[in-house]
Amino acid sequence: MSNTLGTIFKITSFGESHGPSVGVVIDGCPAGLPIDLLHIKTELLRRRPGQSKITTARKETEEFEIISGLFEGKATGAPITIIIANSDARSKDYDHNTNVYRPSHADYTYQEKYGHRDHRGGGRSSARITAGWVAAGAIAKQFLAHSKIKIQAYVSQAGSVKLETPYTQLNLNQAENNIVRCPDVNVANKMIALIEATKKEGDTIGGVVSGVVSNMPVGIGEPIFDKLHAALGQAMLSINAVKGVEFGSGFEGVGMKGSEHNDIFTAGDKITTQTNHSGGIQGGISNGEDIVFRVAFKPVATIMQPQETVDELGNSTIIKGKGRHDPCVVPRAVPIVESMAAIVLADFVLRARSTTFEG
Amino acid sequence: MSNTLGTIFKITSFGESHGPSVGVVIDGCPAGLPIDLLHIKTELLRRRPGQSKITTARKETEEFEIISGLFEGKATGAPITIIIANSDARSKDYDHNTNVYRPSHADYTYQEKYGHRDHRGGGRSSARITAGWVAAGAIAKQFLAHSKIKIQAYVSQAGSVKLETPYTQLNLNQAENNIVRCPDVNVANKMIALIEATKKEGDTIGGVVSGVVSNMPVGIGEPIFDKLHAALGQAMLSINAVKGVEFGSGFEGVGMKGSEHNDIFTAGDKITTQTNHSGGIQGGISNGEDIVFRVAFKPVATIMQPQETVDELGNSTIIKGKGRHDPCVVPRAVPIVESMAAIVLADFVLRARSTTFEG
Amino acid sequence: MSNTLGTIFKITSFGESHGPSVGVVIDGCPAGLPIDLLHIKTELLRRRPGQSKITTARKETEEFEIISGLFEGKATGAPITIIIANSDARSKDYDHNTNVYRPSHADYTYQEKYGHRDHRGGGRSSARITAGWVAAGAIAKQFLAHSKIKIQAYVSQAGSVKLETPYTQLNLNQAENNIVRCPDVNVANKMIALIEATKKEGDTIGGVVSGVVSNMPVGIGEPIFDKLHAALGQAMLSINAVKGVEFGSGFEGVGMKGSEHNDIFTAGDKITTQTNHSGGIQGGISNGEDIVFRVAFKPVATIMQPQETVDELGNSTIIKGKGRHDPCVVPRAVPIVESMAAIVLADFVLRARSTTFEG
Amino acid sequence: MSNTLGTIFKITSFGESHGPSVGVVIDGCPAGLPIDLLHIKTELLRRRPGQSKITTARKETEEFEIISGLFEGKATGAPITIIIANSDARSKDYDHNTNVYRPSHADYTYQEKYGHRDHRGGGRSSARITAGWVAAGAIAKQFLAHSKIKIQAYVSQAGSVKLETPYTQLNLNQAENNIVRCPDVNVANKMIALIEATKKEGDTIGGVVSGVVSNMPVGIGEPIFDKLHAALGQAMLSINAVKGVEFGSGFEGVGMKGSEHNDIFTAGDKITTQTNHSGGIQGGISNGEDIVFRVAFKPVATIMQPQETVDELGNSTIIKGKGRHDPCVVPRAVPIVESMAAIVLADFVLRARSTTFEG
Repeated sequence: MSNTLGTIFKITSFGESHGPSVGVVIDGCPAGLPIDLLHIKTELLRRRPGQSKITTARKETEEFEIISGLFEGKATGAPITIIIANSDARSKDYDHNTNVYRPSHADYTYQEKYGHRDHRGGGRSSARITAGWVAAGAIAKQFLAHSKIKIQAYVSQAGSVKLETPYTQLNLNQAENNIVRCPDVNVANKMIALIEATKKEGDTIGGVVSGVVSNMPVGIGEPIFDKLHAALGQAMLSINAVKGVEFGSGFEGVGMKGSEHNDIFTAGDKITTQTNHSGGIQGGISNGEDIVFRVAFKPVATIMQPQETVDELGNSTIIKGKGRHDPCVVPRAVPIVESMAAIVLADFVLRARSTTFEG
Repeated sequence: MSNTLGTIFKITSFGESHGPSVGVVIDGCPAGLPIDLLHIKTELLRRRPGQSKITTARKETEEFEIISGLFEGKATGAPITIIIANSDARSKDYDHNTNVYRPSHADYTYQEKYGHRDHRGGGRSSARITAGWVAAGAIAKQFLAHSKIKIQAYVSQAGSVKLETPYTQLNLNQAENNIVRCPDVNVANKMIALIEATKKEGDTIGGVVSGVVSNMPVGIGEPIFDKLHAALGQAMLSINAVKGVEFGSGFEGVGMKGSEHNDIFTAGDKITTQTNHSGGIQGGISNGEDIVFRVAFKPVATIMQPQETVDELGNSTIIKGKGRHDPCVVPRAVPIVESMAAIVLADFVLRARSTTFEG
Repeated sequence: MSNTLGTIFKITSFGESHGPSVGVVIDGCPAGLPIDLLHIKTELLRRRPGQSKITTARKETEEFEIISGLFEGKATGAPITIIIANSDARSKDYDHNTNVYRPSHADYTYQEKYGHRDHRGGGRSSARITAGWVAAGAIAKQFLAHSKIKIQAYVSQAGSVKLETPYTQLNLNQAENNIVRCPDVNVANKMIALIEATKKEGDTIGGVVSGVVSNMPVGIGEPIFDKLHAALGQAMLSINAVKGVEFGSGFEGVGMKGSEHNDIFTAGDKITTQTNHSGGIQGGISNGEDIVFRVAFKPVATIMQPQETVDELGNSTIIKGKGRHDPCVVPRAVPIVESMAAIVLADFVLRARSTTFEG
Repeated sequence: MSNTLGTIFKITSFGESHGPSVGVVIDGCPAGLPIDLLHIKTELLRRRPGQSKITTARKETEEFEIISGLFEGKATGAPITIIIANSDARSKDYDHNTNVYRPSHADYTYQEKYGHRDHRGGGRSSARITAGWVAAGAIAKQFLAHSKIKIQAYVSQAGSVKLETPYTQLNLNQAENNIVRCPDVNVANKMIALIEATKKEGDTIGGVVSGVVSNMPVGIGEPIFDKLHAALGQAMLSINAVKGVEFGSGFEGVGMKGSEHNDIFTAGDKITTQTNHSGGIQGGISNGEDIVFRVAFKPVATIMQPQETVDELGNSTIIKGKGRHDPCVVPRAVPIVESMAAIVLADFVLRARSTTFEG
């Protein structure tokens, strides 16, 4: 396994869905950074299960403890370890699945790869572990805030319901005012209705989370292989259920001509571009425009309908979902996307300090 | 900068478009692997400029030399260094651009980040450096071939022309029989016509390269942060002009229901799935089905039309493309996509050897 | 900071001496490995303070908890997180030192580097954190035991008292039968007497820990920069108070001639060497002979005598040691040396699985 | 194999003794650094074979070429690739050894590990490859010189002849005035005489190279596992024939008392220490005093006397050294030690830029 991400600002993730806790070790957090515990809690609550009628009923209080790296309210430079209790794990819900491979879950691949696995609630492959990432992301955001860098994500698609308005015409702060985290209240209501209807059918849908990073300095990114979008892409694809990621014009830009797609530079106090098809990154390095990306989440694999499948002995069987699950993962994925972006950006902002000879 | 990729099978890329050569160091290539030089050459020729009427006119012979790591036709375990001469670089073509930022190129971001840059033909940000990756990819393919793993990429979209037929109904070997590398000859002809027309206008288009990895063993991938698709995604997003990547159902899967999207397991000699919306990867680990992915390339930024822009002093100016450039990059990107996939897979196949206790 | 060590079998260390706990995350432990908790406890107790009259009086019960990565007694492949409570930390003992730089401690350098530090008992620079390494080392030893690889360390020098007998003429198992961990009981008694006398003076001494790894397979080590002794050396130099490390003939071998020093190969069922001046490693790779090394520990910096020093404001002052400290660190360093060796070897045994083409 | 060293300033080494060339890729060299080619040449000549009567007769001109990363005399931030031709490799000298394991060489371990090896002159295990390190070290020195950091190494022991005078009483610049690189001319003459006598016998001796880094800023080093001396130690132990490394008081400090060994702080414009038993590093971080270390080299393994050994088939045989070899390696090791120290320090100076919150 590989549970560490980053070069300077580096997180190591640990824990399973039905163990006592999940957590994270953050190495390389700059010494002296004031740590706002309330903000960490707020972020964890944005991700927590049971937050609304369209999320899983699992109730977590997201109590966390920082057991190292913090002294008198500031980071010391030592590794920061955050532990978040699993308070409402009900392992019994999974007993019926012990030997059955849930379709489109990681049961089969984990079993084949590791031979020995913790089958309770997905074990290590559960999205429960993203709680640790969100805690780390909160600290990364606090660091980035000192450079004014701001990361906002929102739901731009839930199943077939799409938000078509460009983000520049929206107030992204509105996203937190509804349970689906879509900044357009009308679209949000349609999304909520669809999710509720889907839930009633015992079915699930996918969605898209869009991300915007504003106030980016120019020059962040480490080509060739750690291009900023390549690193962000890897981080996004690490999130459970993600099947795709695109930057700027993405897949749609394919159909454009170069003469339409090129972002024309404009002189001024600061060089800017008239359009932002590049999504704020050129040659793997931020150009000062907003970083814009979209992340595709597949429909949740656990459905409340009977499905054919196979057990560990290779026999055909029928499985029906139990446990408590989200009918659509994107509302809760918003803070996860932001956190992974923040973790990558904190690392790259620090790495950029060593670019030039003068320091 | 960060020019090394991989954990065990590791490549370090170097070189610039208008320096004497580009190249690669491959560390961790398994000792004893027979190296087929002719195959390396064949792969380099698939990527080379000037190969057809729809590619740039730059003519490279792609002469290469292996200066270390090879003895009596086999890898010794020592780093393999491959150097590929730049035989047809015409720096003068770029003199007019010395102080001008080409729109949607990396000129501005490199200048801002590094202060000092080699402006000839893009320097380090040029796609010329992918020649080294293709050479490394050829060796990775040779290693994977011993496990029967096969990687095939092809052009599935050029500008507005899309190949709609699923790959399972195509003979992917046909892709190499036409200059655009699309396995359906009718679609290929439309693509070629579109590229030629676009070239005449002095304009460019984007495209999509699709990749299929067949004969994958189960169990390849290192969650959590080195999920197989996250690592492949990072590698794809490292390729010049790539703006998006998706696996299996990708962005389209978002609109499906869980009951449609789930890949039902089927018992048999080997456990298989009835559909492959997962794209061959579940929980970040290969499940034995084909790995299927799509990579979006933006339109080539260099166009033969005048464009407004800004120079290094911040003054407005007009630029018109010179030099020799591709009107559409995807035909030559096919071997690059395959190579990056091969490099990642070789690394992960080797990493998988240390998964379990028994070895 | 950099708190992660290893490539495949990788540990991340966290915690401070006077926080609630110290711990470790082990990533890459092979799945299926049975984990013996009692053995971990035994190892922790070998390192624990307060174990004898010649160690510090701090009493730790070394209660530990494994909060992830273990299921039904076996490693799952997921990161194993071990937390060891700090039960007897007395922060008040350090109040008098808050603003004073203890000579030959890390107070000054941590303060200068990080600006903000946890001054209680050394914070992150305390040897307390090696408890986590010993827990990880226990698991590494359990893995290595399946390949019969055995690591034994012992005290070969305490201050001026040296053990001159070569290890091949000693029963290393005797080392655990006395409180100083020297396998020759007569020398051990002299060492104990010296340590007690030194303690009475309020002074301290240094020592040497020797290590022997037996039953090594041939071929472990990753030249050029991860030569086996270079990696072991880095690990040893990471241990608090270590000032030197040598392998085989080490510094003494410098005075020998090549004709004396060369280890002559002998034919047989297995190729062996007649002498072992190489210390079991040639060209950075194990040759199947015992790996033999020596680690130098400086005298403990905290002494119970007044010393001149400087405070954080740069004023001269006098410091007198308080707190509970070891008069000589080597008896408790024995399990730490073994653990760091085990962690490195587990990593390199796993890395060696990817050396050759056939697997 | 593992041929890359460093985190930010990172070198990748390649090449074999009897291939066409050896070389290095330097990634992370700060952009804008002026590169002095003459200085690189000077450093290569300090390491070159055939430089005096006490070194091997192999004659290398050390012609080198920088094929990337340099533009108009400055580093661009792109990887710098340096290739150094092997102009005087005589592979035939090694034909008689093709199937014979030279005692205390890496022939046996490479053969066992890799199965397939380049046996000519040691292949990858030859010290010839350190030419690339010296070229990289020259660039690292040029970077460090801007911070006034200076690295000087010298021979402090050759076989039984020791330089006893502390370096603070010597003019280290004198080291370059004699062929053995010992700063005390009388001791140097004794060393030279011993080496010549040893050479006549067809035998070899070892030696010690001492290193001093002056003008160090406070705060360089990344505990816990990348303590500055741990990283320097790993780098030194990577050098061919090194069997030990020590910092400050090293192995001798073991016999001292804490009250003698502690480095008392003194107030002043800058906090200093009255002694330097710590060798300039406390808690893994530089304290502003000189960094002082010693590196033990074993006697050269190739001797011009017959020795018993074993061939690849496991049969006993007799080997007599041919080829051109050094009777004592330390005079030529001086620039190698300096280079490895410079490479590590350049990396750590850059890494230190990300320590604190303010940047």
